[in-house]
Amino acid sequence: MKALHSHDARTGQLVGEPLSPSTAQDIDAAVEAAHAAAVDWATSTGRQRASLLRALATGLEQQREALVALADRETALGTARLHGELDRTAFQLRRFADIAEQGRPFAVVDDPAVPGAPPVGHPAMQLHRVPLGPVAMFAASNFPFAFSVLGGDTASALAAGCPVVVKAHPGHPALSVQVHGLICSVLSEQGLPPGLVGMVQGAGVEVGVRLIRHPLIAAAAFTGSTRGGLALEAEARSRPRPIPFYGELGAINPVVALPQALATRVDEMATLLAGSITLGCGQFCTNPGVLVLVEAPETDAFVTRLVEALRPLQPHAMLTAGMRKAFDAGVADLLGAGAQVLLSTAGQGVAPGPQLLQVDAERFIAEAALREEVFGPASLVVRARNLAQVQEVLAAVGGSLTVTLWGVEQDTPDHRALVRSATQVAGRVLFAGVPTGVAVTAAQQHGGPWPASTAPMTTSVGDAALDRFLRPVCLQDAPAWLVARQGVPC
Amino acid sequence: MKALHSHDARTGQLVGEPLSPSTAQDIDAAVEAAHAAAVDWATSTGRQRASLLRALATGLEQQREALVALADRETALGTARLHGELDRTAFQLRRFADIAEQGRPFAVVDDPAVPGAPPVGHPAMQLHRVPLGPVAMFAASNFPFAFSVLGGDTASALAAGCPVVVKAHPGHPALSVQVHGLICSVLSEQGLPPGLVGMVQGAGVEVGVRLIRHPLIAAAAFTGSTRGGLALEAEARSRPRPIPFYGELGAINPVVALPQALATRVDEMATLLAGSITLGCGQFCTNPGVLVLVEAPETDAFVTRLVEALRPLQPHAMLTAGMRKAFDAGVADLLGAGAQVLLSTAGQGVAPGPQLLQVDAERFIAEAALREEVFGPASLVVRARNLAQVQEVLAAVGGSLTVTLWGVEQDTPDHRALVRSATQVAGRVLFAGVPTGVAVTAAQQHGGPWPASTAPMTTSVGDAALDRFLRPVCLQDAPAWLVARQGVPC
Repeated sequence: MKALHSHDARTGQLVGEPLSPSTAQDIDAAVEAAHAAAVDWATSTGRQRASLLRALATGLEQQREALVALADRETALGTARLHGELDRTAFQLRRFADIAEQGRPFAVVDDPAVPGAPPVGHPAMQLHRVPLGPVAMFAASNFPFAFSVLGGDTASALAAGCPVVVKAHPGHPALSVQVHGLICSVLSEQGLPPGLVGMVQGAGVEVGVRLIRHPLIAAAAFTGSTRGGLALEAEARSRPRPIPFYGELGAINPVVALPQALATRVDEMATLLAGSITLGCGQFCTNPGVLVLVEAPETDAFVTRLVEALRPLQPHAMLTAGMRKAFDAGVADLLGAGAQVLLSTAGQGVAPGPQLLQVDAERFIAEAALREEVFGPASLVVRARNLAQVQEVLAAVGGSLTVTLWGVEQDTPDHRALVRSATQVAGRVLFAGVPTGVAVTAAQQHGGPWPASTAPMTTSVGDAALDRFLRPVCLQDAPAWLVARQGVPC
Repeated sequence: MKALHSHDARTGQLVGEPLSPSTAQDIDAAVEAAHAAAVDWATSTGRQRASLLRALATGLEQQREALVALADRETALGTARLHGELDRTAFQLRRFADIAEQGRPFAVVDDPAVPGAPPVGHPAMQLHRVPLGPVAMFAASNFPFAFSVLGGDTASALAAGCPVVVKAHPGHPALSVQVHGLICSVLSEQGLPPGLVGMVQGAGVEVGVRLIRHPLIAAAAFTGSTRGGLALEAEARSRPRPIPFYGELGAINPVVALPQALATRVDEMATLLAGSITLGCGQFCTNPGVLVLVEAPETDAFVTRLVEALRPLQPHAMLTAGMRKAFDAGVADLLGAGAQVLLSTAGQGVAPGPQLLQVDAERFIAEAALREEVFGPASLVVRARNLAQVQEVLAAVGGSLTVTLWGVEQDTPDHRALVRSATQVAGRVLFAGVPTGVAVTAAQQHGGPWPASTAPMTTSVGDAALDRFLRPVCLQDAPAWLVARQGVPC
């Protein structure tokens, strides 16, 4: 079994003593405790859930300085970003508190009896939505707050009425222990059982596999690599009783920049995009990995300016040395598949330099290897002859969290076709700005067709994230005492 | 390749000339035609979709006599039932017409821009729901209208804005051809392309496999056996790009009859249940395959009366000789797993007689083979010692389309616990009556946890069936011309 050890992401140095990975007994005990807490939590009121979620948000804020310092050491993401991420995480907890309290996702569809023969006549029916039960939550490395122990998956599952067992990410183990300690304190203060939010940890795959195989686990949520997500999805499906698996995997997030969008704003667009490519050292699932450009003089000027804008940028260190190695290998794979270098910078120590590559659309469409996500500050320019070929490029991408379209401000048949191509590929289509940055709102959709998500009808960010953990159940001819209960029936 | 031939279900005689199974070229052409129709249909108005669905309903009704006669010959389900099923199918088409016209599933979640920094500030966002594209629809044998060529899957996919390619069921091939001919006439009358609803046919698995593997198919809906459904789901998932697979598979639909429900109504309940077990020769996915009874004098009296009520009932012929063979084998498997005979009747020719078996709860929980669906007029009495053991029986079932609870009219902790167990297992929980009969309503939920459904958050009957074919897409900072469009963006 791999050692579990906190590290300093900037130096690679191990910090403190090794942490104890969860044993099989620990994992089983965490799931059993979650199961034991499930009925009471499923029948808790919106107000009780809101009270917990708000106290967790407050707890995060109260420990802000210590948590951000620890996160910064373990991830190298920088304190400014991490303060912002903590704010977002607290905001998200409070938003799900409001949703749980207002109760909209638990609204009952009431279908009173209609007398007479079918198909018109029918008995009294009520459609409820019941919590699934204990959720296994797999934390991501690149958002140590917002997609980790107390992130959106945990918040939405708790708001839905489901206990959670978090598989902590080994990239920030000390932070995970600290945040879980905070959760345990809040649970205790609120008189809730510690099993409501359990945590297990380990550096290898064994811990997560045992967790997702446990018969009392009712669903799983994951944010991370395609490889890891697919392996866990296969586990979820090969259980004697398969369970829903919500995997938010990789994406290459094409940005289509039409010449008219670049004509008068070459500098502005190049600067904006260079910032997005290198933001957080490119370690975002919404990082713009592919730029689709149509042959035109403006395009050539834009590429030149983009190279210039990228060259001086020095991203910070990557989350782990392993991710740095994977980044270098990913760039090498793109080169091996026929991409050419537009900009290659050496970086500094464990921090890579930005990389800009280029390929023509025919090759991009023909070579699947060119459509693989490279996690880090790299982007691939794809040169298309015309709008029809841009559509072919998007079709070849197949599925992505986002597609960005710059330059479709006019309502033309070509632009409609392009928007249609984009909506067929992505969960979110942007018409301005850059895809990095995912707002926590009612209209957010963070999830797209394969391979962006294993469940493209669902979202892992935004209000509808809660819906993933509720299952519709129709009560037919329910007795009076049961009809009187709104929301979760029992 | 197996021969495709219409047959007389009562005699087993082949009728007419063999039908030509679809070739690989036929299948590809049907999918390509559906794909070619997809954009126009995705951007059609609710009124256009409603007009088509209503004309299809009227077409069914106009050809009622001929269609019912043909269906009766191919299925032996009887003209009374088949007229009722045709009524239901027309009702369902008109209901989805109303839904498409009223537009509720296409309502846009509008999130205007909020100024300021995140997490509070965010750009303008609109959440749309876009049709997935061509849907492969696998018809069932046991509902030659309601779950076949023009059944609920086709109606809901068309209402959602998706073309359909139906894989006809080889159990009623002549009827399928006739119904598809009707569809083609209506499409032509409405000036719609014939590719909007294509059909392919074949007696073996090759046709369905080629259909679901086609890269232009965007989703699949299936009603049928667990074995067939799992094989197709595996195909859907092993595509280079996996697609959503909505499989409504088998279920054993436990009916829990508590002693207090039987005390004063033994005759009534026995007659009701005997009718449900033998209805349509037991060929319903909601057939009550398991009766869970608690030891009590009323229970013994009930079992005695149930045997008496079942004994004289002679179900009609099964859909095919193969299904009759499978029924006999299924009953033999239950006996082999330790069930004992309460009633075994010989049947008449191709029509089986009702079978009632019995086993104790411990054995039922221990032996997975006792929890297998037996498709036909058989039911297994499971004798439990007390309510706690009833809950264990339900937990062992794991997933079912329905659970029926008789005798929980009082609000007691025991009854709450039982209702909770039932909602954890089933998509629909009934408190009176029998599970056969599935109303087409807003609150219907036809789908339950594994193994009842491959997608337990969705339903294949009722208004929400349409939602299966829409995917959420967020438009961020959409230009004015696009914001002005309500519903499908392009």
